[in-house]
Amino acid sequence: MMSSRDMGYDRAIVMYTPDGRLLQVEYASEAVKYGSPVVAIRGKDFAIAVTRTRDNDPLLDPIEKIHMIDDNIGAAGAGFTGDIGLLIDHARVQAQRHRMVFEEPVDVRSVVNTIGKFIYEFTRYGGVRPLGAALIIMGSDKAGKHIYQLDPRGVILSGKAMAIGKNCESATDMLRTEYRADLTVREAIDLALKALSKAEEKESPVEVGIAIGDSFRKMSLSEARALYP
Amino acid sequence: MMSSRDMGYDRAIVMYTPDGRLLQVEYASEAVKYGSPVVAIRGKDFAIAVTRTRDNDPLLDPIEKIHMIDDNIGAAGAGFTGDIGLLIDHARVQAQRHRMVFEEPVDVRSVVNTIGKFIYEFTRYGGVRPLGAALIIMGSDKAGKHIYQLDPRGVILSGKAMAIGKNCESATDMLRTEYRADLTVREAIDLALKALSKAEEKESPVEVGIAIGDSFRKMSLSEARALYP
Amino acid sequence: MMSSRDMGYDRAIVMYTPDGRLLQVEYASEAVKYGSPVVAIRGKDFAIAVTRTRDNDPLLDPIEKIHMIDDNIGAAGAGFTGDIGLLIDHARVQAQRHRMVFEEPVDVRSVVNTIGKFIYEFTRYGGVRPLGAALIIMGSDKAGKHIYQLDPRGVILSGKAMAIGKNCESATDMLRTEYRADLTVREAIDLALKALSKAEEKESPVEVGIAIGDSFRKMSLSEARALYP
Amino acid sequence: MMSSRDMGYDRAIVMYTPDGRLLQVEYASEAVKYGSPVVAIRGKDFAIAVTRTRDNDPLLDPIEKIHMIDDNIGAAGAGFTGDIGLLIDHARVQAQRHRMVFEEPVDVRSVVNTIGKFIYEFTRYGGVRPLGAALIIMGSDKAGKHIYQLDPRGVILSGKAMAIGKNCESATDMLRTEYRADLTVREAIDLALKALSKAEEKESPVEVGIAIGDSFRKMSLSEARALYP
Amino acid sequence: MMSSRDMGYDRAIVMYTPDGRLLQVEYASEAVKYGSPVVAIRGKDFAIAVTRTRDNDPLLDPIEKIHMIDDNIGAAGAGFTGDIGLLIDHARVQAQRHRMVFEEPVDVRSVVNTIGKFIYEFTRYGGVRPLGAALIIMGSDKAGKHIYQLDPRGVILSGKAMAIGKNCESATDMLRTEYRADLTVREAIDLALKALSKAEEKESPVEVGIAIGDSFRKMSLSEARALYP
Amino acid sequence: MMSSRDMGYDRAIVMYTPDGRLLQVEYASEAVKYGSPVVAIRGKDFAIAVTRTRDNDPLLDPIEKIHMIDDNIGAAGAGFTGDIGLLIDHARVQAQRHRMVFEEPVDVRSVVNTIGKFIYEFTRYGGVRPLGAALIIMGSDKAGKHIYQLDPRGVILSGKAMAIGKNCESATDMLRTEYRADLTVREAIDLALKALSKAEEKESPVEVGIAIGDSFRKMSLSEARALYP
Amino acid sequence: MMSSRDMGYDRAIVMYTPDGRLLQVEYASEAVKYGSPVVAIRGKDFAIAVTRTRDNDPLLDPIEKIHMIDDNIGAAGAGFTGDIGLLIDHARVQAQRHRMVFEEPVDVRSVVNTIGKFIYEFTRYGGVRPLGAALIIMGSDKAGKHIYQLDPRGVILSGKAMAIGKNCESATDMLRTEYRADLTVREAIDLALKALSKAEEKESPVEVGIAIGDSFRKMSLSEARALYP
Repeated sequence: MMSSRDMGYDRAIVMYTPDGRLLQVEYASEAVKYGSPVVAIRGKDFAIAVTRTRDNDPLLDPIEKIHMIDDNIGAAGAGFTGDIGLLIDHARVQAQRHRMVFEEPVDVRSVVNTIGKFIYEFTRYGGVRPLGAALIIMGSDKAGKHIYQLDPRGVILSGKAMAIGKNCESATDMLRTEYRADLTVREAIDLALKALSKAEEKESPVEVGIAIGDSFRKMSLSEARALYP
Repeated sequence: MMSSRDMGYDRAIVMYTPDGRLLQVEYASEAVKYGSPVVAIRGKDFAIAVTRTRDNDPLLDPIEKIHMIDDNIGAAGAGFTGDIGLLIDHARVQAQRHRMVFEEPVDVRSVVNTIGKFIYEFTRYGGVRPLGAALIIMGSDKAGKHIYQLDPRGVILSGKAMAIGKNCESATDMLRTEYRADLTVREAIDLALKALSKAEEKESPVEVGIAIGDSFRKMSLSEARALYP
Repeated sequence: MMSSRDMGYDRAIVMYTPDGRLLQVEYASEAVKYGSPVVAIRGKDFAIAVTRTRDNDPLLDPIEKIHMIDDNIGAAGAGFTGDIGLLIDHARVQAQRHRMVFEEPVDVRSVVNTIGKFIYEFTRYGGVRPLGAALIIMGSDKAGKHIYQLDPRGVILSGKAMAIGKNCESATDMLRTEYRADLTVREAIDLALKALSKAEEKESPVEVGIAIGDSFRKMSLSEARALYP
Repeated sequence: MMSSRDMGYDRAIVMYTPDGRLLQVEYASEAVKYGSPVVAIRGKDFAIAVTRTRDNDPLLDPIEKIHMIDDNIGAAGAGFTGDIGLLIDHARVQAQRHRMVFEEPVDVRSVVNTIGKFIYEFTRYGGVRPLGAALIIMGSDKAGKHIYQLDPRGVILSGKAMAIGKNCESATDMLRTEYRADLTVREAIDLALKALSKAEEKESPVEVGIAIGDSFRKMSLSEARALYP
Repeated sequence: MMSSRDMGYDRAIVMYTPDGRLLQVEYASEAVKYGSPVVAIRGKDFAIAVTRTRDNDPLLDPIEKIHMIDDNIGAAGAGFTGDIGLLIDHARVQAQRHRMVFEEPVDVRSVVNTIGKFIYEFTRYGGVRPLGAALIIMGSDKAGKHIYQLDPRGVILSGKAMAIGKNCESATDMLRTEYRADLTVREAIDLALKALSKAEEKESPVEVGIAIGDSFRKMSLSEARALYP
Repeated sequence: MMSSRDMGYDRAIVMYTPDGRLLQVEYASEAVKYGSPVVAIRGKDFAIAVTRTRDNDPLLDPIEKIHMIDDNIGAAGAGFTGDIGLLIDHARVQAQRHRMVFEEPVDVRSVVNTIGKFIYEFTRYGGVRPLGAALIIMGSDKAGKHIYQLDPRGVILSGKAMAIGKNCESATDMLRTEYRADLTVREAIDLALKALSKAEEKESPVEVGIAIGDSFRKMSLSEARALYP
Repeated sequence: MMSSRDMGYDRAIVMYTPDGRLLQVEYASEAVKYGSPVVAIRGKDFAIAVTRTRDNDPLLDPIEKIHMIDDNIGAAGAGFTGDIGLLIDHARVQAQRHRMVFEEPVDVRSVVNTIGKFIYEFTRYGGVRPLGAALIIMGSDKAGKHIYQLDPRGVILSGKAMAIGKNCESATDMLRTEYRADLTVREAIDLALKALSKAEEKESPVEVGIAIGDSFRKMSLSEARALYP
């Protein structure tokens, strides 16, 4: 029996299979699974994310995985580097624009909605491929601390703890078992690292993003440990 | 014997089969069948809709399924999340535009017609896929309380009780058997829940949308039970 | 032997078969054959059309099948609901524009010609499909009462009695046998209903459109019977 | 051995076969052969054309086959009704424009050249099909009486007697045998009818177009017989 | 073994075969070979061309084969009638434009270069086919008398004697054998006719184009014989 | 079993394979592997790159492989010559624009980011191919000396030592073994040459690019040896 | 085993093979190999090129193979005549523009760079084919005498002696053996002719282009021999 794939339904972005699926959008989600994982946890008055840089080549500088969007917002992606960069740039412009017009920092949800719609548009037309990237956006605003997750369909999820990228299901299982609402920053970072190691065994440097108080900062693991002992 | 499908008639949106069908439009309707069901009932002086959020992940916030269009209108969709979002945004803009120009709330039918034409346009051209989403739009206006249903062809149905999404036929059968014109709000919600459970067995939280008096509100099941005991 | 179809001549709108046929245009005509039939009769000083609404679902409002174009013109279609709606909208705009410019109602033929050219254009280019709809347009103007019929090629027919949609040939046969130039309104409606039943056995409500005097009105069968006993 | 057709050379308008043919243009010419025939004869001081209306349906009005282009020019086509209509409209606009600019009727050749180029353009580009229609244009101007013939390539022929549409070769053979330069109007009409019957046996009403003096008129056969006994 | 043709290299204008050929351009040249031949000869102080009209149909007017471009330039083509017409129109506009700007007749080479580039452009892009026509352009200007030849690639050749169209090689062989630099007009016409008959045996009327003195004129063979006995 | 390749997933740039890969982008990376290698090393207060010109043809001038971008920035590419040229031009314009607006030399990272995004854009759309080129960009600015590497996906790497082009892995292995942070310019050039020879055995002239102090210069190997003995 | 060709990688300009090649660009280079060869040599204070005209047809004027670009620059091409003409025109416009703006002749390299980028652009997009032409551009400017060579990828080579077109490798081998830096003009022409004959045995007239002093001139071989005995 021929599969949907053999019939050619996955050769065009704008085409449905007989059972109503958009295969090119589903395939784009596969690209995310190659990406180095990112784990994020929201505590009572903070939100953190951890991720590892690319394999340690002593001759090369590590590639930044956590990106500042604005003073109060950060993001980390999994998937095609260029697609992630496109989304980060788009988010930064949105945040700057808000700041210039309203003279106050943008709220996190507003940035997330803009990026979600931006990603979604790539699932609608021929001639452009869906983006092969997932994103975690975290930050602090008047409404509190937030972690959001976006996938290649543009679907937005928020929550207390989440993971994207390679083996993110294993990381999520770990989070489900050990998450507690009263985690300290230190405990949250430790739990996130434990979940990260579940998803990918690697020894390269860890980057930490922390939304606390009014701001978001990125730092190395040792800096984080020094700040939140 | 080769089917229409084998002949390739379903590889382009703008192409008819020899028996006059547009397969890509029909396939888009299949996408709706994966969507979590929505049930809506119109009573004498109210209209309600119920739906369940995505499977309960304790770490993730439930995804809003019922959306405010304006103070007097709400909507709930089944199908691709992004396509539903596109329609909701379009409806909101239409409602706001009406309010600004005429300084009064838009009537429900007017929003429904606009969205119906918007959906229909996606069945006419190549290069853009038909939308994989169905919508229930409900609300209150000078003419009374209304529930409408739109499918991926842009066809509009109105009525007293209706369901879209996964196994909506089972839900509709239940509605046909037990609907009465003199249902109270409480009875209507109970009947809608019963029909919903017929379509999909799930334990995740229920959202309720209620058009009553001049306005439309969304709330949790427990809030609804408290208001309409 | 391979048919034209096997050779792929029907995979593009703008392509002829070796024997000079445009298959996609012919296939669009097939879509009309699924449509609920419409029967129209022109009498000495009136024109009427009858059609049935969709299958009776007690929970759903019947879908309007006869549409007002202007005070003096009405139309009813068979085929894709969205395509019919597109044509009705186009006809209404044309009628309104005429009224605004000339400050008098548009004549029926003028609307029919505009719609015919509009439909025809969809048979000429790639990237847009031919419309899968036939239309009966009827009305009253200075020149008298008129019934017209348009098909997916944009070809216009006028006459004394006609039918479109499912099994319209059977309905037409009946009309040919029993049509008389001196039918009263009541007799014309009865003959149209008889022809309609020949084409499709169904029990759902009947809509009647009547062009008489200076105006066109749509009504239920019982209203029509009350007015023209 | 595979034919040009099997190789797919006829699946695109803008493509040559290895022997330098444009098959889609040739196939468009086939569409003309289904069309009801038209016969035209030029006499010393007149030009006439005759054609039959569609099969006689007692319920339907006959479809006009001879069209006025301007007071002094008329035309009749064979092939797709919509394509013929497109050409007639184009010719009328061209005639009106000339009249407005130069304040005198356009000469027949000028209209014919414009239409010929218009048809030809459809043989040059992809995305639009060649027109499936042939035309006879006849009329009266300062230079005399004229009959012209255009085919789907846009090629123009003028002459004393000609036929287009179904079995036009048989009609032409008859014309070649019996044409005389000194035919009266009555004799020309009779010869044209004889040639028409050779091409298609049918009993439906005959339309006659006559260019005589400064003007072109269309009429029924009986009117013509009354005028030119 | 599969030929280039079987591999599909000739299904798109903008595609090379592995051996660097553009098959659609080559096929367009085949269309020229169906065209009725044209023979041109340049003498000491004149240039002439001869060609035959289409097969003699007593009812049809012969089709002009030699076209005036301007008072001093003429042209004759072989291939698709519409394509030849397009080139003739283009040449006329170019000649008129020159006359208006510089207030003197255009030189022949300038027209030829413009047409050559115009033809060439059709060999570069997809979506438009190469023109299926060859042209002989002849004329008189300050630099003398000229005959030029253009093919579907836009390549320009000038010379003393040349032929295009059906069996032009046979005609050219004859010209090579019998051409003398001191031919009179009468002798040149006779040689051209002899070469023409070598290429195509036909009895239809001959058209003659003659560039002599400051001007170019077209005439029938008998007129030419009368002028140059 | 059919590979992704056999399924045709690599026949369009904007299409994913079922496992989420973009094959045309991956293939473009193959084009880089034919390119003559470039090796770059960053020392304490300098950055150098070495590369060899094309095979020595005594009749032809060697082709410049190291390009000036601005007074303080240089670049060398591997892959398609034209694609490299496109990137170099783009970088130069960016540097000039910065200089004109800010009246100071551009920083290296800013140029690198612009080029990275430029390359990335070619991986997103149909109708344009991804660029088949990798680039090393090196230079000096207020922040120090830098070497960067860009691949056909637009991904940017910075570091202490790196190689692109043919057998760049072998060159990189050598660099990993012998790189020391305290290399002198002379030692760095020697190590780069050793790595270069590992990647490609060739005797053609060596070009050296050196960023030192405030500026970047390109020179021959002997000039470099003379300057840094 | 299927070759890249069988897989269809050469059916689109903008597509890579799995090993990173652009086959349509490579095939365009094959078109150059049919072209009549051109040989160019740069001496101490001159640059010359020789080429033969098309086969000697006594009736046709020879086709110019060496083209003036400006007073100080000339060019000769091999490949499709139309493509060469396009490049020559482009070069002339560039030279004229420079002269008008700067009021001095353009330098040769500047023209060469413009043409190289122009050719390269045709290797980047779909819908236009790469140009099937190579060019030798030679000339004299303040910096000295120059010969350049451009291929269908837009790659530029400069040097002392070079050949393009049919069997250019054989010609180049001869040049490598016999080239001396101290050749006189006469000796350079003789060597070029010897290399030309190696590539193609033909007896048609030779054209010579000579850049000497401030200017470039084209002439027949006998003129060249008379000037440089």
